[in-house]
Amino acid sequence: MLEQNVKIPASGPGSYRVLVGSRMLHSLWGQIETDFPRRAKFVVTDQNLVSARHLGTLLGPANPPTFVISPPGETSKNMTTVVSIIEAMEGACLGRDSLIVALGGGTVGDLAAFAASIFKRGVPVVQIPTSTVAQADSAVGGKTGVDSSTSKNAFGTFWHPRAVYVDVATLVTLNHRHFRAGLVESVKHAVIADADYFDFLENNLDGILVRQLDLLEKMACFNCRIKALVVEADPGEQNQRRMLNYGHTVGHAVEAASGYQLLHGEAVAIGMIAAGLIEIELGLGGQERLDRVRRMLQKIGVPVTLGPNLAEKSLIELIKHDKKAVAAWPRFVLTSEIGRVHCRDGQYAVPVEQEIVQKVLTSLK
Amino acid sequence: MLEQNVKIPASGPGSYRVLVGSRMLHSLWGQIETDFPRRAKFVVTDQNLVSARHLGTLLGPANPPTFVISPPGETSKNMTTVVSIIEAMEGACLGRDSLIVALGGGTVGDLAAFAASIFKRGVPVVQIPTSTVAQADSAVGGKTGVDSSTSKNAFGTFWHPRAVYVDVATLVTLNHRHFRAGLVESVKHAVIADADYFDFLENNLDGILVRQLDLLEKMACFNCRIKALVVEADPGEQNQRRMLNYGHTVGHAVEAASGYQLLHGEAVAIGMIAAGLIEIELGLGGQERLDRVRRMLQKIGVPVTLGPNLAEKSLIELIKHDKKAVAAWPRFVLTSEIGRVHCRDGQYAVPVEQEIVQKVLTSLK
Repeated sequence: MLEQNVKIPASGPGSYRVLVGSRMLHSLWGQIETDFPRRAKFVVTDQNLVSARHLGTLLGPANPPTFVISPPGETSKNMTTVVSIIEAMEGACLGRDSLIVALGGGTVGDLAAFAASIFKRGVPVVQIPTSTVAQADSAVGGKTGVDSSTSKNAFGTFWHPRAVYVDVATLVTLNHRHFRAGLVESVKHAVIADADYFDFLENNLDGILVRQLDLLEKMACFNCRIKALVVEADPGEQNQRRMLNYGHTVGHAVEAASGYQLLHGEAVAIGMIAAGLIEIELGLGGQERLDRVRRMLQKIGVPVTLGPNLAEKSLIELIKHDKKAVAAWPRFVLTSEIGRVHCRDGQYAVPVEQEIVQKVLTSLK
Repeated sequence: MLEQNVKIPASGPGSYRVLVGSRMLHSLWGQIETDFPRRAKFVVTDQNLVSARHLGTLLGPANPPTFVISPPGETSKNMTTVVSIIEAMEGACLGRDSLIVALGGGTVGDLAAFAASIFKRGVPVVQIPTSTVAQADSAVGGKTGVDSSTSKNAFGTFWHPRAVYVDVATLVTLNHRHFRAGLVESVKHAVIADADYFDFLENNLDGILVRQLDLLEKMACFNCRIKALVVEADPGEQNQRRMLNYGHTVGHAVEAASGYQLLHGEAVAIGMIAAGLIEIELGLGGQERLDRVRRMLQKIGVPVTLGPNLAEKSLIELIKHDKKAVAAWPRFVLTSEIGRVHCRDGQYAVPVEQEIVQKVLTSLK
């Protein structure tokens, strides 16, 4: 028997920039043409962005090939849509020298970046996130994902964007429920990483809820800074990056158990309360801290208890199928104070007994 | 407007080993369990491997969850099969701690590795290639690919295997046509990288064609060494790795124009003759060299001319859609002597005028 070794060389470091501004969407196409002059652009967006006239504002007189995801939202986040996007790119004779421009919320960003990562073994993507959740979270960090018929983000890759352009004025046209649910990721960032940011949110929530652009811009800067620091430290989610999953282990199960009737942020809000209750069970947190978080989420207007239709038993089963599960039970991200994640033996996600999770879910009814 | 930079850290170097042997398939499952003790295994194979009893030989009494691609071959190399593989993995409750074991030819390897690269943002894959083309070429190097309805490998990623196990005895059960077509990639390796290997092939072709295991093992070693050197120098196919596409630009077009009735190796044989004719047109090569290559391909029994059903015009159109095309016309890999690729201005793929390609295709009828 003979043996041959194949070396995989190291890849050099890279970086990309996140631009945050307000009412700049009309100038972004020129910016992208300047930033990526030799690339053939292909736009991925959805019907909501067309209706809100954001697509028209972005493009102006430009007329690049464009794919409009329809219907908008999670129901289209499947491989059928990915295949349609890529076949549309082939139809437009695009090659490896193309650039995908994603204009939209989390679903558009996830689909477009996933398509970019697998089109002819990978082409670059830039993100123009237009929802609270995408601006706070999903547009930065390089995670892509598409749902299978049985679970969320069953398909996915790590594929960093080449640039992210955040115009907070696009949030003004979002509907009430989506705007508010998206704020939960901002609360999560504050809880896991920045007590000053939590104070800022407590002090300015009224202005944020009426979408004052100056406050939304400040919020976007807090979010991008936190996300950038965490992702830089651990881009492939080996350890530290897992802190971004605070509230998400229970949250994903709640989202699935609701048949995706609950929005991601709404489910994560419940997941954050569950995490707070687990912290109390484990002696990591106190009632006062949980009350502060709960008050903020209630003021935002997202649920903080399980509705009557969500059975603990099915939630436990769904948690077992979490994609981070090892030996059929995932670890949990917990905090030790506002702005600080509990880290044990160097691990940012720690084991929690199933009984404790079950007890907490029962108390959340 | 505010700007935040997100750094993407460098990734360290890696490596994987290729084991080459004969009649060792029965011991490989134990080897894999030893090499990857903590991973839940999932096997991807196809009906041919079941019929040839290779799957049974590999597994022995082991009974891991297994996906059998059906029908075997390029017709199944699509996203529908990828989705089925991944949903089968979900059905078996597999998570990120799983390992895909690909047992089969190029289609099995491409599909399994692509599925591994996108399952829950990536799980490792090991390859057990069982065809001449997969052992010579596709199992080593980390390219994955799946066809769209309009083009080959429209979907794909770079995803290196964690190990490759080559048992040349699996080639004995291959049918005549597939065995011979797969040898073309070996001829290609010799032509682009190793004149001694070309001499070895010329001197031992009779024994190789009757599948003498000692010769097949030597051939596998030549192939792995060449592939490893080229891939190490340029894993992401920025430049030098393109030399592996010798004969492939015309080859891919011929393969598509035949409606995939021609096997990959058969189409590449025609593509290699086309490359030789282009070399003569450009003053890079002589008739004698082309004759040596043509004689070897003819002895192997693969086509060296375009059949009557392949029109130059449609080939030119297909070449324009090559996934390496920039500004709708790809560059070509050419050799300057046997064992050496022509490199101009540091580039391993060079521009060739469309008229010259057209002339060569006409002379190939």
